[in-house]
Amino acid sequence: MRQTLAFDADDTLWHNETHYAETQEAFRALLRPFHDDAWIDARLHDTELRNLGRYGYGIKGFTLSMIETALELTENRLDGAGLRQVLDLGKAMLDKPVDPLPGVAEVLAELAGSFDLMLITKGDLFDQEAKLVKSGLGNHFSKVEILSEKDETAYAAILQRHGIRPATFIMVGNSVKSDILPVLALGARAIHIPYHLTWAHEVVASPLESLYPVLDSIRDLPALLTSW
Amino acid sequence: MRQTLAFDADDTLWHNETHYAETQEAFRALLRPFHDDAWIDARLHDTELRNLGRYGYGIKGFTLSMIETALELTENRLDGAGLRQVLDLGKAMLDKPVDPLPGVAEVLAELAGSFDLMLITKGDLFDQEAKLVKSGLGNHFSKVEILSEKDETAYAAILQRHGIRPATFIMVGNSVKSDILPVLALGARAIHIPYHLTWAHEVVASPLESLYPVLDSIRDLPALLTSW
Repeated sequence: MRQTLAFDADDTLWHNETHYAETQEAFRALLRPFHDDAWIDARLHDTELRNLGRYGYGIKGFTLSMIETALELTENRLDGAGLRQVLDLGKAMLDKPVDPLPGVAEVLAELAGSFDLMLITKGDLFDQEAKLVKSGLGNHFSKVEILSEKDETAYAAILQRHGIRPATFIMVGNSVKSDILPVLALGARAIHIPYHLTWAHEVVASPLESLYPVLDSIRDLPALLTSW
Repeated sequence: MRQTLAFDADDTLWHNETHYAETQEAFRALLRPFHDDAWIDARLHDTELRNLGRYGYGIKGFTLSMIETALELTENRLDGAGLRQVLDLGKAMLDKPVDPLPGVAEVLAELAGSFDLMLITKGDLFDQEAKLVKSGLGNHFSKVEILSEKDETAYAAILQRHGIRPATFIMVGNSVKSDILPVLALGARAIHIPYHLTWAHEVVASPLESLYPVLDSIRDLPALLTSW
């Protein structure tokens, strides 16, 4: 029976957090006449977390949170032109090309011969589908799951829906919180490939690194899988 | 072999377009000092369609389009307090309770004994999942599919994924464009239950009503299915 090798998408297959960081820098620049950077960052983060239960993950919710933060931090004094710039920052994120990280296309093509490849990502359905198309990586995956949250319950539902036993499932991703710990909790395996940036919301206090392999690059994945 | 009976959600199981209409009336009221109602409606509709390829369907994209329209129509003169009202209109939509339409809960409970019930809806993943939970109807459905678009390709993929033959598939919904025509095109059956409002984007020129049954209420569905 073939094993299922599942990949996270954002910051595992292509850049994502970098785009948020660049956008946030432009947002800071816009509000710098009113506040210092640390305060702007802290208040934006607060707004995002406060809205997470209503907006979920993704660029549209992030854009709405930037607008809300801009109004709050300027006591409604940011003018219409400034708010339009915030709208445009969100659109520019949605319009970004999706370039696979180095090695991704080759490694997926190589592993597709030995594993059932699955994509498991969270976020905005419409945007995630568009990114998969733009990435050109779609045809490597026999199954694609876009979730509103990646927790133990969500992974258990996926395994059940596809009739996959935990012993034959391996998850690869950059987020210890979303890609590693809930998968280990189900008795499946997981491999961590860190990205150089991690959204504060995804940082975990105890990464338990002795429990799973950590790779520098996806290029090291085939060798690890062969020896595992 | 059991037949699959699939339901659309928005405006088939619960109110949706009514909430958009109410919100749009509040939006009009906000911009009435600047323009007349017909012009506000037309420009909002233009903005929504222009952004559809970027935002997809759903309340977050609609909120962003309202903000963009408000800035355009006031030449950036709507003040921060006004823009915050637009943000709050979007949040109020997301926070609305989800009350099933009359008869829905009883009919689903009755039909679950004879059919595999599936939910097939399009829109924002996070919001649609939240609405299903809030509706209390989730446990009637053995399968739930939330799509970014409901066209022939999307329905064909669902039938294939679940191993359902078109001859055993029946779709029930309020949108001729999204729930009826693409399903008939696959050789499956569809039943139209109109809602009293239809979003302009969903209106079709030739509804071909001789090709499918049209019901006044979901309460008439069990009798139709028995006789069909």
